[in-house]
Order: sequence, then C-alpha cells, then structure tokens
Amino acid sequence: MHILILGGAGMVGRKFIERLAHSGELGAKTVDKITAQDVVAAHAPAACPFIFDAVVSDLSIEGEAEALIASKPDLIIHLAAVVSGEAEADFEKGYRINLDGARYLFEAIRKSGGYKPRVVFTSSVAVFGAPFHDRIDDEFFTTPLTSYGTQKAIGELLLCDYSRRGFFDGVGIRLPTICVRPGAPNKAASGFFSNIIREPLNGIEAVLPVSDEVRHWHASPRSAVGFLVHAATMDTSAIGPRRALTMPGFSCTVAEQIEALRKIAGEGVVARIRRVPDPVIDGIVAGWPRNFDARRAAALGFRAESSFEEIIRVHIEDELGGNFVK
Amino acid sequence: MHILILGGAGMVGRKFIERLAHSGELGAKTVDKITAQDVVAAHAPAACPFIFDAVVSDLSIEGEAEALIASKPDLIIHLAAVVSGEAEADFEKGYRINLDGARYLFEAIRKSGGYKPRVVFTSSVAVFGAPFHDRIDDEFFTTPLTSYGTQKAIGELLLCDYSRRGFFDGVGIRLPTICVRPGAPNKAASGFFSNIIREPLNGIEAVLPVSDEVRHWHASPRSAVGFLVHAATMDTSAIGPRRALTMPGFSCTVAEQIEALRKIAGEGVVARIRRVPDPVIDGIVAGWPRNFDARRAAALGFRAESSFEEIIRVHIEDELGGNFVK
Repeated sequence: MHILILGGAGMVGRKFIERLAHSGELGAKTVDKITAQDVVAAHAPAACPFIFDAVVSDLSIEGEAEALIASKPDLIIHLAAVVSGEAEADFEKGYRINLDGARYLFEAIRKSGGYKPRVVFTSSVAVFGAPFHDRIDDEFFTTPLTSYGTQKAIGELLLCDYSRRGFFDGVGIRLPTICVRPGAPNKAASGFFSNIIREPLNGIEAVLPVSDEVRHWHASPRSAVGFLVHAATMDTSAIGPRRALTMPGFSCTVAEQIEALRKIAGEGVVARIRRVPDPVIDGIVAGWPRNFDARRAAALGFRAESSFEEIIRVHIEDELGGNFVK
Repeated sequence: MHILILGGAGMVGRKFIERLAHSGELGAKTVDKITAQDVVAAHAPAACPFIFDAVVSDLSIEGEAEALIASKPDLIIHLAAVVSGEAEADFEKGYRINLDGARYLFEAIRKSGGYKPRVVFTSSVAVFGAPFHDRIDDEFFTTPLTSYGTQKAIGELLLCDYSRRGFFDGVGIRLPTICVRPGAPNKAASGFFSNIIREPLNGIEAVLPVSDEVRHWHASPRSAVGFLVHAATMDTSAIGPRRALTMPGFSCTVAEQIEALRKIAGEGVVARIRRVPDPVIDGIVAGWPRNFDARRAAALGFRAESSFEEIIRVHIEDELGGNFVK
C-alpha cells in the first residue's frame, strides 16, 4: 500500500513512519511506499523496507493537494498544522494552513472522482473551550477559545460531511497532550508537562510553572502512533456519521505526575524539578480541559495508557533505551 | 443607523424590513437607511420612512462583500443561504454560498480594520444530527447530517472566532422551524407543518404526510423577526464567547397542532386536513430535532410563543387580517 503523510516531518509523523519501517506493514498489508510531505524535508527512517519519498511543499497553495494525491495513495494521514500559539499570533496563516489546507485536500479528493481513500485527520482537544464539566463526554459541544481550535473543529465538520457524502472514508482523532514529548524543551505553554519528566530523567533541572493541583489529559507518543494505526486500519462501518473522536488518555494532576516519577526514578530525580510559578502559563492552562470520558473511542478500539507510571515507562523504553540519570 | 441585510428578499428579511418601516427605529435608534441585498431584487416596504436600497448581487463572488460593507453599515443581518435541500443536491453551490459567502463577509469586515459592526448570523437547528436526546440542551454537540447543517455549524464557529478576536460583534441565532409560514405551499419537507394550518384557514384542503405523533420545534415569523431585533440590539457583553444560540420555540406534536387549530377555528377547518402518509417525508422528519431546552437564549432575553394556539393566532392577525374561512 501507498501512504501519504501530510506534516510527515513532525514528531508524531516521524514516529509513525518509524513504526511502519519496523514492521513493514499496516493492518496486514505490506507498505510499499510512503510519501512524507512537509514544509521541511522529512528524513527516511534508518532501516527502510519501502520506497520513501520526502516532498517539500505548502499544502495551502492551490494545486499542491492535487499533485500529492495524483498517484491515489490508499491512505492519507493529515498531521500538517500551524500550532496553537502561531495560529493565534498569525490569524491569516492559521486559517490558510489549518482550514484552507485541509479543505484543498478534501476538495482534491472529491474532484478526483471515484477515488475514496481512508483519511485520518488529527484534531485536538483545543476544539473545546472553558467552562467545562470536570469530565468532558463525547456529546459535549465544541466552543473553541483559540483560532487553532476553531480551525480544527471546522476540519472535523468538513471531514464528517465529505465522508457522509461518500467522497472519502474519514476518521478524526482528537489527540490528548502528548507526554512525554521527546527532544529539547520548547516554548509551548504545555511544554512543562513533559519537561518535568524528561529533563530530570536526563539529569537536568526542569521548571514547573503551575501549581501541583493542575489536572490534565495525557497520552504517550507511542499511544499517539497507536491511534493513527488504529484510525488507519479500523472498520469504519461501526463509527456512523460522527467521525470526530476524542482519543482516550490518562487524566492526572501534576502532583500525581511527580509521584509517578518518584516511584519509578526516585527522590533524587524528582529533586530536579524546580517550582517557579508563572501566572501567565497558569492562566493559559486554567482554560484547558482536565479530563474526558472518551467512551466512544474506547468502544471503537482506541487504547492509551491507564497510569502515568506507564507513560513514564514508555518514555524510558522508547527514548532512553531503558536507562535514566539517577 | 444604516442596516445591511444579506438575503433581504426572503420571507424573514421582508418581515424584518416591514417591522422597521412600521416603527422607523431599532433599539431606540432611528433607521436612516436599509440596504437589502439578495440574488433577486428586494421590494421596498409600502410606507418607507428610510432610504431603501435594493442591491442584486452574489455574495459568493469575491469582492462583493467588500462593496457591500464599504459604507460601513452599523448592523449587518446575514440571512442569505442556499436552503437545505438545494445544498444537499448541489454540493458546490451550498459550500460556495453558505460557507464561502459568510467567510468573504467576515473577512471583508476584518480587513477593513477598525470597523466593528454588530453581525447577526442566522443559523439553524440543522446543525444538530440524530440521534438526539428528547430535549437538546445548550451544550449538545453539533454533528449535522446535511451539508447545509455543516455549513451553518462552520459559520457559527467562524462567527465566534472573529468575534473573540474583536473583528466584529457577532450573534448567531439558530431558528426553529418557522410556522405558520405565509404564502403558497412549497416543496420543503417541513412544509406540511405550516400547510396543515394555513391552507385550512384559507378554506383549502391540506395534506398531512406524517403521523400525528411527530413532534417538532416551532416559532412564528413574528418571533423570528423578534429574534433578529433582539440579536441586533442586545448587550452582547453577557453572551461571552459562545455566541451561537438555539432560539426559544414551542415543541408540540402534529396532533397538538391540530387540536390547537380545532380550538381556534373549529371542526370544519380541521376537516380540511387530509392524511396521505408519505414514507419519504416521514423518514426525513424522523431525523429532525423534536424539542430543545433553549435556556441560554431565554436567559439572554429571546422570546417565542408558549403555545401552538398563540402561533396560530399570530398567523391569523399578521397574515389574515384577523379572519379565516370557517
């Protein structure tokens, strides 16, 4: 099979490609070719059993989507997005990439006529806006408080309508905050959820800018890849027309995150977390969802971690080769 | 004040204009000018105390929105839409008029810079898709089962985001089925809700294609105009960022509609309703919302009828000069 990955150079795309390179197949079908599109060149995985084609292009330019789907890939994974902060800072760019980009793709497929691929659209819990219930259920309305969340909610609506009309077979997956994110600390407001685990395990100090009582919704990068694999291979006849699904995750407080780290890595590692309250980040995080009752996705076979210790263990296995700095 | 009405030649637009012509003002401000845009020429009301400018144009053509807002109207009422059946039959036309048209308008306002009008966007309960709860509350998710409903749900999301960003001051109002609709019977699947009242009151037979147990959500044309007036004049500081509101209405069964007609007009009028079951219409109507708990709109001051008898009386007063054919 031929898989087209839009935004294939990002963290989740890279890990998805690595997983396919490892197994060589997806849903019992051999992967023959991957086309990884992004605004920067995606790198081929080390041991690569399939043709790997890195395409550098801007999906928000008319005609690019047509070129990308001309060879009719069996599966399209749409990960490309301007992130929340940038979409808020640059209104036009956010709408151009996140809304028009998705729409151009959907339109290109529709107009190609008779070509009906599986399309996996990654969305976000940013489609929800405070105030929330303590646990957000699958029928809660989407009232985003960011342009990014608005663009994702619109993408979900389009995905559902194009699927209902039979133009493609779409699955929308709302990712939890991915934790523990590998790599260097970044400036995302959510960065500290990963930083306070990753950095101490590397022997480095990390800053915690919010209170220990802050509760949030997490899943590991491994789970994120699992969501993509399942969304790409599942029998969609069970979904019905409501194709935007909140993915499962694990809800815990920062205190519970730290407690899990203590159990796994010990007091010395936890001592590398330094509390430096930041009212700005505290304010941003206060508007975020804390917990979900993601029943539909679970019933449809999506799986995530069921403890934060598990999330830390996945990080130590997948990123640190089983070791950390005591 | 100068009011721009997009889709001003339709039934609701016409009635809104008539009401303004009658009072000469809106929210204690004198109406100086109305620009009524539509794809056909809107007619000036009989006694017209303001400048009335009928503009024939297609809002889905780039540049039209800029021309319409060039004179910076204080209030914009956006009623223009391709209706449900047509948006389903002609996919491209529906997206072009209902989605792109709204977006061009919003973009034109944003790009004008510093101009921040009130924008009233009429939406629909078609943003909801079955299965529903028996009463749909204000936090129920929007999972439309038509392209029209999808386009309206996207319009609401854009309206909220553009308002949140301060580009204009938007209010989205989801209209109930308007009943009793004046004029000749039309082919809309919902037409019978009005036909079975209007035609018998005119001494004409009407066909009822569904069972007496069908429950639906109604408000009069007079209430629809009241929603527009309130949305145009209310203090929006109380709304917050969730600016798409399900309007109040009255939920009743067809049997209750007929019973109300019997009370007001007598058995002879009711006898003009002929039951001719139509499984196609029955099937369509089965997917429609039956009842709402439209608490937020009510708390924000929107009002509708509280009985179906009241809805019939409004029709007899406003359309029949107080008389009907016994």
